[in-house]
Amino acid sequence: MNIVLILIPLIGLIGLIVTAFKSAWVNRQDAGDPKMQELAGFIAKGAMAFLKAEWRILGVFALITSILLGWSGTLIEESNPIIAISFLLGAFLSALAGYIGMKIATRANVRTTQAARTSLAKALDVSFTGGSVMGIGVAGLAILGLGGLFIVFFKYFVPEGALATGIEMKKAIEVLAGFSLGAESIALFARVGGGIYTKAADVGADLVGKVEAGIPEDDVRNPATIADNVGDNVGDVAGMGADLFGSYVATILATMVLGQEIVSNDNFGGLSPILLPMVTAGLGLIFSIVATFFVHIKKETDSVQHALNIGNWSSIILTAIASYFAVMYLLPEKMVIREFEFTSLDVFIAIVIGLVVGTLMSIITEYYTAMGKRPVNSIVQKSGTGHATNIIGGLSIGMESTALPIFILAAGIFGSHYFAGLYGVAIAAAGMMATTAMQLAIDAFGPIADNAGGIAEMSQLPEEVRHRTDNLDAVGNTTAATGKGFAIASAALTSLALFAAFVGVTGIAAIDIFKAPVLAGLFVGGMIPYIFSSLAIAAVGRAAMDMVNEVRRQFHEIPGIMEYKAQPEYEKCVAISTRASLREMIAPGAIALLMPVIIGFTFGPEVLGGFLAGITVSGVLMGIFQSNAGGAWDNAKKSFEKGVDINGKMYYKKSEPHKASVTGDTVGDPFKDTSGPSMNILIKLSSIVALIIAPHISTMKTMEAKKEPKMKIEKVTPVAHIK
Amino acid sequence: MNIVLILIPLIGLIGLIVTAFKSAWVNRQDAGDPKMQELAGFIAKGAMAFLKAEWRILGVFALITSILLGWSGTLIEESNPIIAISFLLGAFLSALAGYIGMKIATRANVRTTQAARTSLAKALDVSFTGGSVMGIGVAGLAILGLGGLFIVFFKYFVPEGALATGIEMKKAIEVLAGFSLGAESIALFARVGGGIYTKAADVGADLVGKVEAGIPEDDVRNPATIADNVGDNVGDVAGMGADLFGSYVATILATMVLGQEIVSNDNFGGLSPILLPMVTAGLGLIFSIVATFFVHIKKETDSVQHALNIGNWSSIILTAIASYFAVMYLLPEKMVIREFEFTSLDVFIAIVIGLVVGTLMSIITEYYTAMGKRPVNSIVQKSGTGHATNIIGGLSIGMESTALPIFILAAGIFGSHYFAGLYGVAIAAAGMMATTAMQLAIDAFGPIADNAGGIAEMSQLPEEVRHRTDNLDAVGNTTAATGKGFAIASAALTSLALFAAFVGVTGIAAIDIFKAPVLAGLFVGGMIPYIFSSLAIAAVGRAAMDMVNEVRRQFHEIPGIMEYKAQPEYEKCVAISTRASLREMIAPGAIALLMPVIIGFTFGPEVLGGFLAGITVSGVLMGIFQSNAGGAWDNAKKSFEKGVDINGKMYYKKSEPHKASVTGDTVGDPFKDTSGPSMNILIKLSSIVALIIAPHISTMKTMEAKKEPKMKIEKVTPVAHIK
Repeated sequence: MNIVLILIPLIGLIGLIVTAFKSAWVNRQDAGDPKMQELAGFIAKGAMAFLKAEWRILGVFALITSILLGWSGTLIEESNPIIAISFLLGAFLSALAGYIGMKIATRANVRTTQAARTSLAKALDVSFTGGSVMGIGVAGLAILGLGGLFIVFFKYFVPEGALATGIEMKKAIEVLAGFSLGAESIALFARVGGGIYTKAADVGADLVGKVEAGIPEDDVRNPATIADNVGDNVGDVAGMGADLFGSYVATILATMVLGQEIVSNDNFGGLSPILLPMVTAGLGLIFSIVATFFVHIKKETDSVQHALNIGNWSSIILTAIASYFAVMYLLPEKMVIREFEFTSLDVFIAIVIGLVVGTLMSIITEYYTAMGKRPVNSIVQKSGTGHATNIIGGLSIGMESTALPIFILAAGIFGSHYFAGLYGVAIAAAGMMATTAMQLAIDAFGPIADNAGGIAEMSQLPEEVRHRTDNLDAVGNTTAATGKGFAIASAALTSLALFAAFVGVTGIAAIDIFKAPVLAGLFVGGMIPYIFSSLAIAAVGRAAMDMVNEVRRQFHEIPGIMEYKAQPEYEKCVAISTRASLREMIAPGAIALLMPVIIGFTFGPEVLGGFLAGITVSGVLMGIFQSNAGGAWDNAKKSFEKGVDINGKMYYKKSEPHKASVTGDTVGDPFKDTSGPSMNILIKLSSIVALIIAPHISTMKTMEAKKEPKMKIEKVTPVAHIK
Repeated sequence: MNIVLILIPLIGLIGLIVTAFKSAWVNRQDAGDPKMQELAGFIAKGAMAFLKAEWRILGVFALITSILLGWSGTLIEESNPIIAISFLLGAFLSALAGYIGMKIATRANVRTTQAARTSLAKALDVSFTGGSVMGIGVAGLAILGLGGLFIVFFKYFVPEGALATGIEMKKAIEVLAGFSLGAESIALFARVGGGIYTKAADVGADLVGKVEAGIPEDDVRNPATIADNVGDNVGDVAGMGADLFGSYVATILATMVLGQEIVSNDNFGGLSPILLPMVTAGLGLIFSIVATFFVHIKKETDSVQHALNIGNWSSIILTAIASYFAVMYLLPEKMVIREFEFTSLDVFIAIVIGLVVGTLMSIITEYYTAMGKRPVNSIVQKSGTGHATNIIGGLSIGMESTALPIFILAAGIFGSHYFAGLYGVAIAAAGMMATTAMQLAIDAFGPIADNAGGIAEMSQLPEEVRHRTDNLDAVGNTTAATGKGFAIASAALTSLALFAAFVGVTGIAAIDIFKAPVLAGLFVGGMIPYIFSSLAIAAVGRAAMDMVNEVRRQFHEIPGIMEYKAQPEYEKCVAISTRASLREMIAPGAIALLMPVIIGFTFGPEVLGGFLAGITVSGVLMGIFQSNAGGAWDNAKKSFEKGVDINGKMYYKKSEPHKASVTGDTVGDPFKDTSGPSMNILIKLSSIVALIIAPHISTMKTMEAKKEPKMKIEKVTPVAHIK
C-alpha cells in the first residue's frame, strides 16, 4: 500500500528525465552565425561567473548555518542534528534549480534568435521549450528531493506501529523542515542578489546609453549591454528558479506539518493528509508536462498569449480534476484537526479555492499592468504633464492595485478555512502551487525571449527578426507580472500555513494582538518589508551609479567605440554588477534571517507570532504595490512605441511625455524586479525560521508587564457629585 | 473636592481668553500698503469661500450621521441617543477650531510681511503670535468642550453614590465618545479636503508657472498663485487645526475610557484616573501659554529655530514637572486595571515615556528631512543622474525612515504598558499630546510665514523682506516635518488605547490573529491605508491637471498677463481647487468611516479588532514613509538654492540636477501634505468608529468555520512501513 510513498519521488524522476530530453532538443537547434554565438558566449560566461561567485559566498553561509543547525539539534529532545543535512540538501537543490535554469536559458536565447529568422512559431517553440526545461526541472528536483528525503526520514524516525499523529512522525517532518529552510534561504539571496544585478545593469545601461549617448537599447556599443543581458539570466531566470523552488517546497512542507496533526482513519495508516500535498504536486507536474505540448502556434499572426493560456489552463483544469480523484482515493470521508472536523470533499473544495484565488490574482495583476487597460492608460495620460505626474500616477495605481487582491486573498483565507480548517488554508496554497512547472515555464520563457531580442539587436539582424522577438518579449512582460501576482498569493497562504504550524509546535494558545508586546511585535514585523525594500532599492541605485561611471569612463577612454571600431570592455561591467550585487545582498538577507531569531529568543513565541503576522501583511501589500506599480510603469513606457493619444495629440518615442514615461519605468525597475518579488521570499523565510526555532522557544512566556496581578482592592468609595 | 472637575473647563476658558487677547494684538499690527492688503484680501476671501463650501457639505454629513447615531442610541440599553448631541458638538468645535486658525492666519500673513519690512524679530513676533492664537485656541476649545460636556454627562448619567467603575459612568463616557467621533470625522474631511486643495493648487501653479512659463513661485502673473496661497491656509492651517483638535480629544477620551475601568481608592471617589488626562492637558495648555512668551529673538542673526526650541522645550519640561505633582496629588498609591496592579509613580513614568517617545520621533523626523544631513544629501547626489534616481533615492529614504520610529514606538508601547498596563499606554499618549497648544503654535507659524513670503513676492517688496520671510519659511518646513512625526506617534499610541477601550466594551477575551477570519481582517485593514493614499494622491493629480488646463487657458486667452497689463482671473482657479477638493474628499472619507462599520456588523468584534490592528500598523508605516519622503524631497530641492556639490561640480537652481529635484518635490507634495498626514486621522477615526459601534456588536461571535467540533475518532490505525 505504500506504493504512493514510492510513486512520489518517481514522478520527480520522470520530470527530470523529461527535462533532459527537452534540454537535448534545445541544444540540437541551430545556434546561428559566429557573431551571434560570440555574443551569446559573452552572456553565458558572465552568468556563469556570477553564479560561481555567488555560490562561493552562499557555500560559506550554508556551511556555517548547517553547523549551527546541527548543534542546536543536539540541545533539546524535540530536535535532531540531522536537520543540518536536510538543510544542506535543500540549499544545494535550490542552487541546482537556478543553475539548470540559467544553463538552458543561455543556450535557448541565441537559438531563439536564430529560430526567429525563420518564423514566430519556431521561435516560440525554442523559447518555450527552454522555459519548460526550467519549469519541469525545478518541480522535478523539488518532488524528488522532498519525496526521497521523506521516505528516508520516515524509515529512520518512525518505528513500525507508530501513529501518524505521533511524536516520531512529528520529528521526521520537523527535520524535513530544514530542507525548506535551505531552499528558501538560498532563494532569498539568489532573488535579491540577482535582482540587484539585473537592475543595476539595466538602469546603468539605460541612463548612459539611451539617455546620454542616445544609442538604442541592447546596442553592441554600450559597454553595459552584456551585463544587462546577463542580468536577465541571473535575476529573472536563476533567481526566479531558486525562488519558485523554495515556494513550492515551503508550501508542500507547511501542508505536511499540518497534515501530521490530522487524525485520519484512512487506508494508509493516517498518512494520507501528509502525503496529499506531495501527490497534488506530482499530479500538477505530470499535467504540466502534458500541457507543455499544447503550447504551439501555426501562423505568424497567431496569438502567443493565447497559446500560453491554453497550456496554462489545461494544466490547471487537468490537475484540478485529477486531484479530485486523488483526494477521494487517499483521504477518508471524515477527519479531525485541532478539534475541527472536515470531510474529503471539503479538502477538495479548499484546493479549488486555492486554484481560483491564484487565477483571480493573475487576472487582476494582468489588468493593472497590461497595455491598453485603464490603469496603464492613466499613467500614459499623466506622462503628458511631466515626470512628476507620471510618478504620482504610477504610485497611485500601485497602491490602488492592492485592494482587489487583498479582498480575494482574505476571502480565500476565510473560505478555505471555513471548509477545512487550517489544513484547508495550507492545501489551498498547495493546490495553487501544484502547476508550478507550467507557471515557471511560462515565466522563464519571458527572459529567454528578452535575451533573444537583445542578441538580435546586438548582431544587427534584419528588422523582422527583432519584430518577432519583440512580439515574444511583450507577452513575456505580461506573464512576468501575472507570475508575480500568483507568487505573492501563494506566499501569503503558505505563510499562514507555516504560521499555523508554528503555533502548533510552540503550543501557544493564541496570538493575542491586544497584548501590548504582541502589538509591538506586529509593528516591528510590519516595518521589516520597508527597511528590506529600502536596502534593496538603494543597492540598485548605488550599483547603477557605479555602472554609469564605468560606462562613461569607457566612452571617454576607449576611442572608436561609437564608430564600432573598438569593442567595449564588457567584462568590466559584468564584474561591477557581480561585485555590487553580492556585496549588497548581505544586509537584507541578514535582516530576514536574523530578525525572527532575535525576536523569538528575546520575547518568546507569542511576540514572534505578532512579528510574523506583521511581516506577512505588510510584505504582501508591499509586494503587490511594488510589482504592479513597476509593471504598469513599464507598459506605460512601452505604449509610446506604437504612439499614444494625450489630449488629442499623438506622441511617440523620444517625445517629452515618452521621456517622462522612461523615468517611471526606471523607478519601477527595482520595484518590480528587485524588492517587489523578494517580498514573498521574505515572508516565507521568516515563517520557516520561526518554525525551525519554535521547539527551542516554546517554553518562553510573553513578558507582558512588570508584575503579576496580586492586589485586590476591597472597599471602593463611591463618586461624589458637585454640590 | 470636585473642584478639579470644575477647574478643567475653566482652564479651557482661560485659554480662549488668552487667544482673544493675542488675536487682538495681531489685528492691531500694521497690515501694509493697499497692494498688499488687496492680495491678502483675495487670499482671505478664497479661504473663507472654501470653508463655507466645505461646511455646507459637512453640515449635511454631520446631520445625517447624528440622526443615525441618535437612532442607534435607542436600540440597545448600553447606548443612549444623547450621543447625537455629543457628536454634533464635537463636529462643530472641530470646524470652529479650523475657522479660528484660518481667520487668524489670513490676518497674520500680511502683517508678518509688513513686519518683515522692519526686522526679523518683529516678523517672528507676528507670525508666531498668529500661530499661538491657533494653538491655544484649539487646545482651549477642546478642554472646554470635553471638560464641560463631562460635567453635564456626569451629572445626568451618574447618580449620587455610584461607583466610578460602574455602568452609569461607563455610559457617560461612552456618550462622550460621540464628541470625539464628531471631532475626528470633521478632521478627516478637513485634512483630506484641505490637503487636496493645497496640493492641487501648488502642483498646478508650479507645473505651468515655474516649469512652462518660467516665472518664479508666487508670481502675481500666475493665475493659480492666489489659490496656492489660499491652500496654505485651508490645508496647512484649517486642516491641521481640525486634525490636532481631533487627535487631542481622541487621546484624552481614550485615556478616560480606560481610566473608568480602574479600581482606584483615591480621594475623589475613584474619579482621578478619569480626570487625570484632562488635568494633564490643562497643565500642558497653561505651560504652553507661559512658554509662548519665551519665543523671541533680538538680532537679525539670531536663530529662529533656537527660539522655537526654547518655547517647545520649556513647555514640555514644565508640563512634565507639573504632571508629577498632579499625578501624586490625584492618584492613590496603588490602582488596578483588568487585574493588573500599578502605582501612581508608574503612571508618571508612563507619561515621561510618552514625552520621550514624542521627542525622539521629532528628532528622527528632523534628521531624515533636514538639509545638510545624510538622507537629504543622498537624494541631492542622486539628482545628479536624473529624475529617476532622485525618485528612487527619495522612496528609499522614506522607507528607511520607518525603522527607527517603529523601534521607538514599539519600545514606547512595551515600556508604558510594562509600567502601568493599558492605562499606561493611553496616558503616555496623553502626556505626549499635553503640549499640543505649543506644538500647534509652532506648526501653524510655518504656513503663516509661507504666506507672508508669497505676499512679499507678489507685492514685489524689496529683496531683504523676502529674505526674512524665507528665513522663517525654511524653519517652518522643518517644524512641519517634526510636527508630523509627533502626530503619527501620538496617533499610534492613541489608537492602541482606543483599541484597548474597544476590547473592554465588547468584552472579547482576545484578538487572536491566529484565527483565519481575524487574520483576513488584518489583511483588509492593512490594505486600507494603501487605497486611501491612492485615492488622495490620484485626486491631487486630477485636480492639478484641471488647474494646469485653466492656467494655460488664461495665459492663452487673456492678453497682457505676462506684461503685468491684465490681472489674471484668480477666483476661477480658487473655484477649481475648491470644487475638486470637495468632490475628491468624499470617497476616502467614506472608506474610513464605513469600513469598520461593515466589517464589525458582518464579522463581529474580533475580526474588527484584527482590522483595526491592520489599519493601525499599516497606517503608521505609510504615514511615516510618505511624510518623511516628501519632506526629504522638499529639502533636497531647497538645497540647490545655495548650490550643491555633486561629484566635485557645483550645481544651482535651473541646472539639470535641480530640475530632477523639482520632480521629486512635486511627487512628495501629495505624500507629505495630503495622504501622509491623513494617516493618523484615518487610524484614529477607525478606532473611534469601532468604539462607538462596540456595544452593538459585542454579542456577535466570530464565524470561524462551518461547524463546531463534534466527532471523535476512537480507533486509529498505526502507519505501515514499506516492506
